[in-house]
Amino acid sequence: MGADTSMQALPPIGPDHPGVAELFAVLAYGEISAFYRLAEDAQMARTLEGKVALASMASAEMGHFELLESALTSRGFDVYEAMDPFVRALDDYHASTRPSTWLEALVKAYVGDGIAADFYREIGHSLPSEVADVVEEVLAQTAHSEFVVSEVQSAVRASTRDKDRLMLWGRRLLGEAITQAQFVLSRREALTELVLGATGDLNGVVALFDRMQQKHAERMSVLGLV
Amino acid sequence: MGADTSMQALPPIGPDHPGVAELFAVLAYGEISAFYRLAEDAQMARTLEGKVALASMASAEMGHFELLESALTSRGFDVYEAMDPFVRALDDYHASTRPSTWLEALVKAYVGDGIAADFYREIGHSLPSEVADVVEEVLAQTAHSEFVVSEVQSAVRASTRDKDRLMLWGRRLLGEAITQAQFVLSRREALTELVLGATGDLNGVVALFDRMQQKHAERMSVLGLV
Repeated sequence: MGADTSMQALPPIGPDHPGVAELFAVLAYGEISAFYRLAEDAQMARTLEGKVALASMASAEMGHFELLESALTSRGFDVYEAMDPFVRALDDYHASTRPSTWLEALVKAYVGDGIAADFYREIGHSLPSEVADVVEEVLAQTAHSEFVVSEVQSAVRASTRDKDRLMLWGRRLLGEAITQAQFVLSRREALTELVLGATGDLNGVVALFDRMQQKHAERMSVLGLV
Repeated sequence: MGADTSMQALPPIGPDHPGVAELFAVLAYGEISAFYRLAEDAQMARTLEGKVALASMASAEMGHFELLESALTSRGFDVYEAMDPFVRALDDYHASTRPSTWLEALVKAYVGDGIAADFYREIGHSLPSEVADVVEEVLAQTAHSEFVVSEVQSAVRASTRDKDRLMLWGRRLLGEAITQAQFVLSRREALTELVLGATGDLNGVVALFDRMQQKHAERMSVLGLV
């Protein structure tokens, strides 16, 4: 029943491949859960400016959700039914990476978003342009993260203790994200086919996770976490 | 020191009147506080669709905030300093009208937003067009409230008890909103001048609150709360 992963030449993924709707759906629920996580984390903000920064990031997620909702609807899917299989994995990710400080919340907002974006972008690039365009638009960088970068940078310059903790925290975010991604892929055949189609084969999937790790290290470095 | 409210003919309000920045600032903090209230209230949602509806409404508030932030910045104000005098009144409004059920949350989202919009629109209409346009754009109706209307309508059709409770709740929302509006006006001279300029005189202010009460009754009726 499963995709024959021993074959090197997989058929190209068309825009109507069932994995496309699954990709849009997991992205869509990702936006909803990120929205509520950011809104909740903002309670730890020490300034009104911090609260506004997280609220703006949360709102950008909802804009992306609406885009994915249209993409799913225009393909004949109900967004709520489509998202249902992904609720648990994403809720679990957030439950296992609940920030306990304002700085952890900021690092998660920046790093967690980045990890997810890398994954989706890697898959998106190899899909037909009508699908890739939706993915790219959803991932379009928002300007709000400048606030996060400067807040974290100055905190870690001021405290080695904060820096050490946040470096561990960043590693945990990556680990949990990969765990949940693997959990999702192990259960969703169509989505797995899409990922294999995008990466070539299982070695390609491994290479993808390696590239994500590399990009993660670059983002941590931007925050001063090296 | 106060505006001489015994005079009928007030000078026309220009676009640089200090009350304009105060109007934008109270509107701006209103958006932030509504964002966080909606995001928190969504925890009571019984369905994912309900959570999404409130998240979309919350995000629309942030879009409006960004518009007001630009309007204030382009006039040389810092949005955070400008909002500061209004934090307490709006926080008090939300603290005194914290919904205890999902239906109360929906009614508050719909009715509370409406009360605020009526007030700002009444003032905005009599201001120079460059100011009125900002107010109008901020208040532009979002489509998300359809969900609220149909949820509340079917709940109150099904339960007289819910209906009775929500009618009292609606009345309380109006009362608290007017209380806080009066508190703000009693402390902010420039804003009061703007309101007096918009309404003509103190009788005009009374008439404005009467019209708000009328519109409130119409909105309650849309929800089936008559």
